[in-house]
Formats: sequence, C-alpha cells, structure tokens
Amino acid sequence: MEELNPPDRLLLGAGPSNVHPRVARAMASPMVGHLDPYFIEVMDETKNLLSKAFKTRSKFSIPVSGTGTAAMEASICNLVEEGDEVIVGVNGFFAERMAEMIRRWGGKTIEIKKRWGDIVTKEEIEDAFKTSDANLVALVQAETSTGALQPLEDIAKITRAYDALLLVDAVTSFTGVELEIDEWGVDICYSSPQKCLNCPPGASPVTVNDRAMNRVRNRKTPIRSLYFDFTLIERYWNERRMYHHTAPIVNIYGLREALRLALEEGLEARIAKHRRNSEALVAGVEAAGLSMNTEKEFTLPSLNAIRVPEGVDDAKVRQILLDLFNMEVGAGLGELKKQVWRVGLMGMNSSERNVLFVLEALEVALRLEGHPLKKGAAVHAAIDYYNLQ
Amino acid sequence: MEELNPPDRLLLGAGPSNVHPRVARAMASPMVGHLDPYFIEVMDETKNLLSKAFKTRSKFSIPVSGTGTAAMEASICNLVEEGDEVIVGVNGFFAERMAEMIRRWGGKTIEIKKRWGDIVTKEEIEDAFKTSDANLVALVQAETSTGALQPLEDIAKITRAYDALLLVDAVTSFTGVELEIDEWGVDICYSSPQKCLNCPPGASPVTVNDRAMNRVRNRKTPIRSLYFDFTLIERYWNERRMYHHTAPIVNIYGLREALRLALEEGLEARIAKHRRNSEALVAGVEAAGLSMNTEKEFTLPSLNAIRVPEGVDDAKVRQILLDLFNMEVGAGLGELKKQVWRVGLMGMNSSERNVLFVLEALEVALRLEGHPLKKGAAVHAAIDYYNLQ
Repeated sequence: MEELNPPDRLLLGAGPSNVHPRVARAMASPMVGHLDPYFIEVMDETKNLLSKAFKTRSKFSIPVSGTGTAAMEASICNLVEEGDEVIVGVNGFFAERMAEMIRRWGGKTIEIKKRWGDIVTKEEIEDAFKTSDANLVALVQAETSTGALQPLEDIAKITRAYDALLLVDAVTSFTGVELEIDEWGVDICYSSPQKCLNCPPGASPVTVNDRAMNRVRNRKTPIRSLYFDFTLIERYWNERRMYHHTAPIVNIYGLREALRLALEEGLEARIAKHRRNSEALVAGVEAAGLSMNTEKEFTLPSLNAIRVPEGVDDAKVRQILLDLFNMEVGAGLGELKKQVWRVGLMGMNSSERNVLFVLEALEVALRLEGHPLKKGAAVHAAIDYYNLQ
Repeated sequence: MEELNPPDRLLLGAGPSNVHPRVARAMASPMVGHLDPYFIEVMDETKNLLSKAFKTRSKFSIPVSGTGTAAMEASICNLVEEGDEVIVGVNGFFAERMAEMIRRWGGKTIEIKKRWGDIVTKEEIEDAFKTSDANLVALVQAETSTGALQPLEDIAKITRAYDALLLVDAVTSFTGVELEIDEWGVDICYSSPQKCLNCPPGASPVTVNDRAMNRVRNRKTPIRSLYFDFTLIERYWNERRMYHHTAPIVNIYGLREALRLALEEGLEARIAKHRRNSEALVAGVEAAGLSMNTEKEFTLPSLNAIRVPEGVDDAKVRQILLDLFNMEVGAGLGELKKQVWRVGLMGMNSSERNVLFVLEALEVALRLEGHPLKKGAAVHAAIDYYNLQ
C-alpha cells in the first residue's frame, strides 16, 4: 500500500471545505498530553474563542469529541427524556435526522413538515405549542441538504414564552451567517468545524446555556451515554479537569486556530462576505437561466442549492467538474437527490475567485453535457454584481 | 490570543504517545471530501490495514469517529440490551468504566472484582458463567490505569463454550502486544490510535465479527444511538457508501499511515520490541530498588506502572521530569492515585533510547526529591539486559 497522495481538490461542495493553511500548520504542531498544563491553556483559550464566536456568555462552549452528528446526538441525548414532547421543523435531511434522533432517545416529536427548501414560520411554531406540552424546539438554522436559512429570532421569543428550550443546528452557518446565541435566546447550539471554519472534522463546537444545563442536571432519568454526558464533560472542561476521555488534541489545535482566524477577520465582516459572494453567485445562476432551490430571502449564503435543469444528468456534470477542474460540488441528498447541485462557499472558500470560477466551470460542464447556457452570462452577472458594491 | 506554540514533550505517559513524523505528514496532506472517490479508496485501505493489524477476516474493522471512550461506548451500546447479563472483570479504571457503561445501557453486570494490577482468571470467568445467564464477557486486555496485561486465549474458549460473546478493550495494546482476534476468538475489540500507533486521537479502531454483528442485527430493542449504530456505520463503510456522518477525514489519513508503519515493521517484531524494552525498564526499576505494580508475568509492555516509593511526592517527581527534561510520565489514576508512575513505551516511543533516558531521569528526579537511588544502578541494569540480547 502506497504513501497517501490525495488530489488537491477545490472543495465547493456541502462540506468539508478546504483546510486553511494556518489550521493545517497548527495541527502539525507538536502534540502534548491531554492533561498537560499547556493543553489546559489551549482548552481554556478554545472555550473563550467558542464563546466569542457563538456570541454567548455561557461557559459551556466546548468542542464535542466527534463530528457534527456526534454534536447533534450529544445535544439530544442530554436534553431529551423518555416521553418528552419536542417540536421539530422537518424540511430537510438534517431536520429529519434530528427528528429521528429525538425519537430514538425516547422523545415524542411534533413535526412541522415543509417542502425541502422552505422554512418554518413562527406561526407554525406557536400553533405547535398550543396543541402540545413541548418543552423543546429543534430547528436547523442552515439546512445543508436544501440550502435554506431558517430565521430564529422570533421563534426563540415564542419558545421562551412557552418556557421551552430552543436547540439549533448551526453546522453550516457558524461564523458564516448571523447567529446571536444570547441575544436571540438560543439555549443549545452545535456546529461542525469543516464548514465555515475551514478546519478538518473531528471536534465539533457546542454551546449550552445555564437554562439548558439546569435541565440536564435535573433530569428525572440518568443520561445513558457516558461519552456524551454533558455533566461529565463539563467537569473535564472546567476548573476541575476531571479526566473524562482523551480529547482529540490535534483537532482542537486546529479548531483553536480556525476560530482565531474567524475572529481576526471579524464575525461581521465574515458574515457580510458570505452574503455578498452568495448574492453574486445567485445573480450569475439566474442570469444563466438556472434557478435556486430556495427563495431569495432564505438562501443560505454558505450553501447554495442550484436546481439541476430538466434533462441534465447531475452526476455527469459533477464528474466533469471533478475530472476537468479538480472541483467538488455537492450532489442532492435525500428528497433532493439528482435535483440540485450544492455549492458551498464556506469560510475562505467564500471568495470572488471561487464564485467566478464555479460559474465558469458549471457553464463548461453543462455545455459538454449538451445543455449550453448563454455564453458568459453567468460570470458577467457576477462581475456586474461585484462592481456595484 | 497568540499562535499555537506547544512545548516539544517526550510523551512517556499513559498516552498519547508522540506522533510519528510520517503520520503528521499524512495528516497535513490535502483534505478531500468524505465521499470523494479518493477517500473511498482510503476507507477501503484503512479497513484492510485494520483487519490485518487485528488479525481478523472480519470486514467490519473500521475506525469509530471519536476517541477510545467513543469506541467503548459504541461497542457496548450496540451489544448490550436492557436486562442483559454481562460478566465484567473489574480491576482498574477502564474496567470500572466498562462496567458503568454496561449498566448505563441497561445491562446487569456480574463483576469479578480484583486488586488494581491483578488479572482475572479463567476459573473466575467460568464460575461467573455457572451462576448467571451472561451472554457477554467484557475485559480490558491492557489496563492503562494499572499496567496489567490480561491473558485472553483461555477465557475466549470458555466464553464460546457458553455461547457468549467476548468484548475486549485493547486501547493500550493494539499493535504493541500480542492480540489474535480470530485465532483466540475475540468477538468485538476496540482500541485507540494515540497509544502504540503514535497517531493523534480522534478515530478509534473497532473490529466486530459476524457472530457479534448478527447479535446487533437481531436485537430485540432498537439501538438508541444513531451516531454509534453499527448497522448504519456498516452501510457507510461497505459497498453501499450510504452517507451516515462526515468521517474525521484527516484523522483517518493519520490512522492509515500509522497502520502502514506498524505493518511495515511487522507485528511480530513490533510486539517483541515492546516486550524487550519493557523488560529492560523493569530490570532497571528493580536494580534501583523500586518495584512494579504488577507481577512480572502480567506486566503490560506498553504501559509500565512503577510503585512510588514510601514518602515520595509523586507529583513533584513528575513536575521535575516535565520541567527539566520536557518529559511526561503518567500519574496514578483512581485507586492508584499517588501510588504509581505510569511509564508508556508505545510504538516508536518503545526504544532503547527512551528506556535508558527515563531511568536516568527518574534517578535524577528522585535524588532532587531527597530519595537517592544507588547511582547508575537502574540504567546499568538496563544496559546489561540489552547486552544479553
């Protein structure tokens, strides 16, 4: 078996995005032990950086030792008890997964089903409260499968009015899209490093506020999972430093550097950049006669789902992009299989260069697949968009 | 907050061990997507390497996306159902953790309690079967907290005679100590990459044979965890490539390279090396008038627990090693807190150089702490041991 020799892809799919060179360098730093005084500093710094990025005062802002699905499971298995009623917006693959996980952990889901690509309204949430005893609302802010951005602020208010908790999946939005944990009143939120943070997957940000931690501490039934038990994880990450498990040290090195990069750029500037590049992409897509899977207002800047035109084989187009340009674009998932391409513009991958390049590349691939677009229309619309800024 | 700048420790503690330069280089390779054709090759190669290293024909030899505790939890939450009786050897921190996890997941533990440092005998296992309906035996082969090596071959035979399954924790033994999954008849085994594999933690080897997978597939109750559900993980890692979660891609790059290194060296040679260096260390320890926590026959070559002499402050000695030599040696854990130093000689860290150095360093530290040993006795005994080889 030979030495590893991966191709140098441009990762414009649904994630992972490309690793930032500074993150790769941080991960190649000498590894220390998980209880080393230096690592304890790194843990504290990482917690502080996470709190800043999540815009929360919560001290329980830590990376779960696993990928985004681990962070989802950790949140749900700590918060949901047998028989708990949970309102879930079900409008995409990850929303469905949340609902499935809640059921697996004994919860009873009250599901608000929507077309994949649509969002859940505050009125729908309020109606669900009126007809249930829900103590938790679970929503995906950035639905990676559909490219929809779920508004949260009003829903957070309603949730609090009903004395329930709000759990939010921010896997594909964290540091790329507006997310105000404390100001809006999100109680539990998790994300993943391989999206807008340009960091390899393996240690996944979670923040849990006091209201939510009190619920966890006062459960009627014990938490089955030891690995994900927030009360134990807290004792490892707070002053007690009680051994719980060996943290994925090098992944945390990477996450720390990725957060440092995000905060250096400034969250506001970073969010504006994601919005601007997404709007330029959408301008290009529409000028070329293609269409998005989402309404303009709810298009997720970090993940742009473009409808595959009638008669075009989506996989062949993606294969051309891979073979000709070493570029990954995401396939449709679940209900949207073969119906959309998912173009991720995440973190450093959200750039003018990538917007123009992916529009050009898509035009080439579609022409080769016998579906010519108006030559140069897409890229010129994007250039126009940028010039207007 | 400044750039990461960790000290360059020599990690001779309970793990992690130092990262092999080739593993670090592999992890710095360009990251591809988790469904990229290149990554699918890497997945297949990693499975093959894992099967070889575990010495099994089982196709379900995969890395769980988390640390060693995640691999423990994955094994237990798939195998144990509410009310199942499980025989557990309880003779150390990780054995106790296994028992706790089994109880959390609804199992009823039949515990064989031993002094921390002793092993469980086949007679004790047989007695436990005679007085229970156990369908699973859970043992730690390499008890990181005590330095004891648990023999498995005879116990595996008894377990099979009672038509039960054998679950083994090989976190600190995998590729450093003899482990014959198929030949002995171990049904489920998990490990961790940051011990004898010299790879950062984050993706943890697990192997499950057909007997065990059949039990998982035919559970009476569904598996609560989605993240750890072996039936779903199998569909992602086998030909179906069904998306389950984003694998920790870069950690798997590292694991693949670490396994390649282990197999290049040859398992037999590697195991002999671990034994030789441990014996040299023990010879030095005893010549210096110190003693081990375990009987010679059951001393774990990868993790050597030395008793802290009466009147010596174990933490001060470890601090001297850290400050003076940038060397980590492990503290005692749980019942053995303050009673032992745990000297890890794992993978490339199991070397003549490190044995001589740690003996010298311990002598210096003990002298500084007012507990002088006979000058040079330890290191000379180790040199003598090597000369005799």
